[in-house]
Amino acid sequence: MIVTNGKKVLELSKVDAVYVSCEHLLRYLTGFEAENGCAIVDKTGTTFYTDRRYIEAAEKFFKGSDVTPVLYSQKEVLARLAGYESVGVSFVWTPHIEFLALEKAGAKLVDIDSAFDEATSVKNSYELSCIQKACEIAEDAFLALLPEIKEGMTETEVAALLEYNMRKLGAQGLAFPTIVAFGAHAAVPHHETGTTKLVFGDEILIDFGCRVNGYCSDITRTFLFGDDGKHEEFKKAYNAVLKAHELVKTEAKAGMTGKDVDGIAREYLKTQGYGELFTHSLGHGIGLNVHEAPSVGPRGEVPLLDGMVFSDEPGVYVVGQFGIRIEDTVCLENGKIKSFMYKTNRNLVIL
Amino acid sequence: MIVTNGKKVLELSKVDAVYVSCEHLLRYLTGFEAENGCAIVDKTGTTFYTDRRYIEAAEKFFKGSDVTPVLYSQKEVLARLAGYESVGVSFVWTPHIEFLALEKAGAKLVDIDSAFDEATSVKNSYELSCIQKACEIAEDAFLALLPEIKEGMTETEVAALLEYNMRKLGAQGLAFPTIVAFGAHAAVPHHETGTTKLVFGDEILIDFGCRVNGYCSDITRTFLFGDDGKHEEFKKAYNAVLKAHELVKTEAKAGMTGKDVDGIAREYLKTQGYGELFTHSLGHGIGLNVHEAPSVGPRGEVPLLDGMVFSDEPGVYVVGQFGIRIEDTVCLENGKIKSFMYKTNRNLVIL
Repeated sequence: MIVTNGKKVLELSKVDAVYVSCEHLLRYLTGFEAENGCAIVDKTGTTFYTDRRYIEAAEKFFKGSDVTPVLYSQKEVLARLAGYESVGVSFVWTPHIEFLALEKAGAKLVDIDSAFDEATSVKNSYELSCIQKACEIAEDAFLALLPEIKEGMTETEVAALLEYNMRKLGAQGLAFPTIVAFGAHAAVPHHETGTTKLVFGDEILIDFGCRVNGYCSDITRTFLFGDDGKHEEFKKAYNAVLKAHELVKTEAKAGMTGKDVDGIAREYLKTQGYGELFTHSLGHGIGLNVHEAPSVGPRGEVPLLDGMVFSDEPGVYVVGQFGIRIEDTVCLENGKIKSFMYKTNRNLVIL
Repeated sequence: MIVTNGKKVLELSKVDAVYVSCEHLLRYLTGFEAENGCAIVDKTGTTFYTDRRYIEAAEKFFKGSDVTPVLYSQKEVLARLAGYESVGVSFVWTPHIEFLALEKAGAKLVDIDSAFDEATSVKNSYELSCIQKACEIAEDAFLALLPEIKEGMTETEVAALLEYNMRKLGAQGLAFPTIVAFGAHAAVPHHETGTTKLVFGDEILIDFGCRVNGYCSDITRTFLFGDDGKHEEFKKAYNAVLKAHELVKTEAKAGMTGKDVDGIAREYLKTQGYGELFTHSLGHGIGLNVHEAPSVGPRGEVPLLDGMVFSDEPGVYVVGQFGIRIEDTVCLENGKIKSFMYKTNRNLVIL
């Protein structure tokens, strides 16, 4: 299936031509995966410039679409860009050295990051289906992992097995480095997975995701490896985080800002005495990047719309004791939240 | 162990201060792994600016070193940069939007990419030990994979198992997406690992690597899954590639340019009638990036020095038929090539 988002970005950015060369935007505009290349979009369509390694595959891929694959020539690309009244590029994703080369060639460059954010944040049906698949693989991999978790395994061994499961199920790769945290390590939201061994009674927090056609899934589950009877505070907090997570799902509506949606979880956790312990944003947009627009936190001023994909991941962290995070990848559909996750339990699991 | 390369870069770049914010250069200058932050190096030492997530770990890590960890403040960083006569940054690794912000704050920015290349390409003993470990893990993972390869497995399944082995052996993650190519797929140097199933008599090409403390390994092995008697041309070419690979190891010396070293393999393959079929460079520098300086190909004008790490990977590709690549990660030590690989066979293996 060919997904060309070039026209969408061109219309939103109001420039004569759009130029991209970074991997994920190249993929966004053309649907094609290549380590190397660039694309120019103008009102006549999209030209995809690539090298000999990819040209044959690209010709097959783009047959019948509005994308024309062409063998890359720096001279040709620069000359073409110099001929437009205005060329939109991402100032965030263009290295300064490349910006200088474009400018030197005479291209009139315009920052169109806000158009990229606006375009990429609302997913089409192809993009939603890739994210759905990436979420299903993540959940299935997690379900296959649970019976394999044994006392004495290290965090890294658990991560390795989970990643293996995702790859076997068809994931292209990881969406980000897997976080596996045992015991009090879970209190560190970005804990670095290490050699700590699992002990009976430990809590386990796993934050992970994979990619399908470049698109990411992102999921966190927190659970207990046996119950040693010392988890009263943990369980109380778990229920509060779960309730906050679910409240977002039932109360968030299209048209609310990211700040509003973040507030649903934040206000509830405050009433339960956990306000100070929820130390990060509720979520972030998810697509070809695991963190992208829209912002779903206290600074999220943009209204959330149908087709936007983001995480719902409230958390409570008590340093030196425990940490809880429950995260689904969700989207807005018909004005309401729909989760991509439907296989794994969000109620507290005790292995 | 703390490795601070700040002083080295400062001296080579001849600026008043060096500023970095991208992940791998941040790691290069400080030895510390953080998703987020920046560093300023001047003659008084290195200041590492990071956020609340990392500050505690950073304080422990940098105790007794010339690096001072500080909580990040944009205002403070920009004010400090504005105060120097000249601030060296990487034009390649600085996004244009960040460049604009630094410039607007009054920083006098200088391109020091050549100093970064010169510094990063010569590894110190800590860096060499990380690469050695990453190479050992890759080889051990490969040796554990071989007996598990069975008819009917897909390329992706083989890649998944190999990656799992590397993770279990302590790899932090992959150095790059694993390439597994069965049969004629091996003729495509950057084949995308897919769902093709393994058949008796297939050749298998695997190009893979992992990371230890950020540092990469890179290795390729080509072998046969049984011998169906139809591999005469393949075997002839295999021996030529192996000979080219070994010639580089015995004949390359410190002081030769990347072009000279590339020429050792290229000239030999020409004499054997494979000149046109060796379609890429002999190698590339390897470090915190899997492709970095020095250049080891027909355009490599920089002399290779002791401590430089690069790949020795000649290849021969016959479209639609077969492809052969034999690759070690090697370095120059006492003027001569030393391979980091010593566990796996380079002679043709037939499973």
